[in-house]
Amino acid sequence: MKRPAHSEIPRKAIYRLSGYLRCLAKLKQHGMRTVSSEALAKCAGVKSTQLRKDLTYFGQFGTRGLGYDVEQLCRLLSDLLGTNSLRPVVLVGVGNLGLALLSYRGFEQEGFEIIAGFDTDASRKRNKQVRQPIYGMERLAEIIRQHGVRMAILAVPPADAQAVAGQLVECGITGILNFASVVLDLPDEVMVNNVNLAIELEHLSYFVQQP
Amino acid sequence: MKRPAHSEIPRKAIYRLSGYLRCLAKLKQHGMRTVSSEALAKCAGVKSTQLRKDLTYFGQFGTRGLGYDVEQLCRLLSDLLGTNSLRPVVLVGVGNLGLALLSYRGFEQEGFEIIAGFDTDASRKRNKQVRQPIYGMERLAEIIRQHGVRMAILAVPPADAQAVAGQLVECGITGILNFASVVLDLPDEVMVNNVNLAIELEHLSYFVQQP
Repeated sequence: MKRPAHSEIPRKAIYRLSGYLRCLAKLKQHGMRTVSSEALAKCAGVKSTQLRKDLTYFGQFGTRGLGYDVEQLCRLLSDLLGTNSLRPVVLVGVGNLGLALLSYRGFEQEGFEIIAGFDTDASRKRNKQVRQPIYGMERLAEIIRQHGVRMAILAVPPADAQAVAGQLVECGITGILNFASVVLDLPDEVMVNNVNLAIELEHLSYFVQQP
Repeated sequence: MKRPAHSEIPRKAIYRLSGYLRCLAKLKQHGMRTVSSEALAKCAGVKSTQLRKDLTYFGQFGTRGLGYDVEQLCRLLSDLLGTNSLRPVVLVGVGNLGLALLSYRGFEQEGFEIIAGFDTDASRKRNKQVRQPIYGMERLAEIIRQHGVRMAILAVPPADAQAVAGQLVECGITGILNFASVVLDLPDEVMVNNVNLAIELEHLSYFVQQP
């Protein structure tokens, strides 16, 4: 399997791979062994030309007239996305949202384990018990190194986000899921995905007002 | 203020308006009365040509050499996004994630109030108290009508998402924030925004593996 450089493949194509993988997992569950690009594309909500183009970045798949081998393509996409084993993630900022994310069990089914939470006030009284340990920021570097963590969830207040993100990068984190509603200024080799639920609602809000 | 038709303005431009609004709110807090397009664009993490183009959809703003009136542009964007008053939202599917979202207080600061949760099993024992009422699905239409709700958060299992989304649309919902990892097939006039935290992590996971 070839793995193109960062710059060669559009960010959005990687999101679509996740969609294909979910569809393939469903097909596998139903005992299907092959699937046409049209059927797989339809399941993922894209055009079949898009699907074929996305897969071309990683090599040549499928057989004309037969389609894709479900099992094989599934394994390949899991390898690419690194979800064939449980990957450790740290979470920084154990406020209301951070606590909710720590207690959310959905990540593990998808191959990610939040191993610990970090907060400037680790011992603050919280309205909910979580199973992960919550540490002070002084233990960040140690835990990240010890578990070989590369990904972090950032759920600190906006005013602290840039400084904390900088700390994470110094500790070796190269992928950040950012819930703080600020634009982070980080080295190019660090990938940041921004999630802002309020902005998603605002976006809907614009459209529901339309006549 | 003119309001272009859905099809005239790119979906992404609306997301950027949210970013501009946040920057303007910050400037206002700091007592600034005008801002140049360059400074506002930089704060929002976009090019100034992009900012000017986005605003052009809604009319002519700013004065050459003086920039934008912070207060005026703030009010205008809040009007457009409908966040100048608290908007009611319903949530369907009070499982682990649904419960976390119900208890998250961040939405209200941004102009959205989740007024109620709905679940096929409204009386199921849950590991957390929330302040909103949780109703059975049979009360969905009544509550939506009573409060004039247009937006819903969908946090049901993937297998139920399409059916529940259909019910929401029948009740008059025209904007859905979809946390279920399935592609919803709904009438064109319904706006769906998909949020899938596992897919965001997978996307990062792809990039952190790179050499």
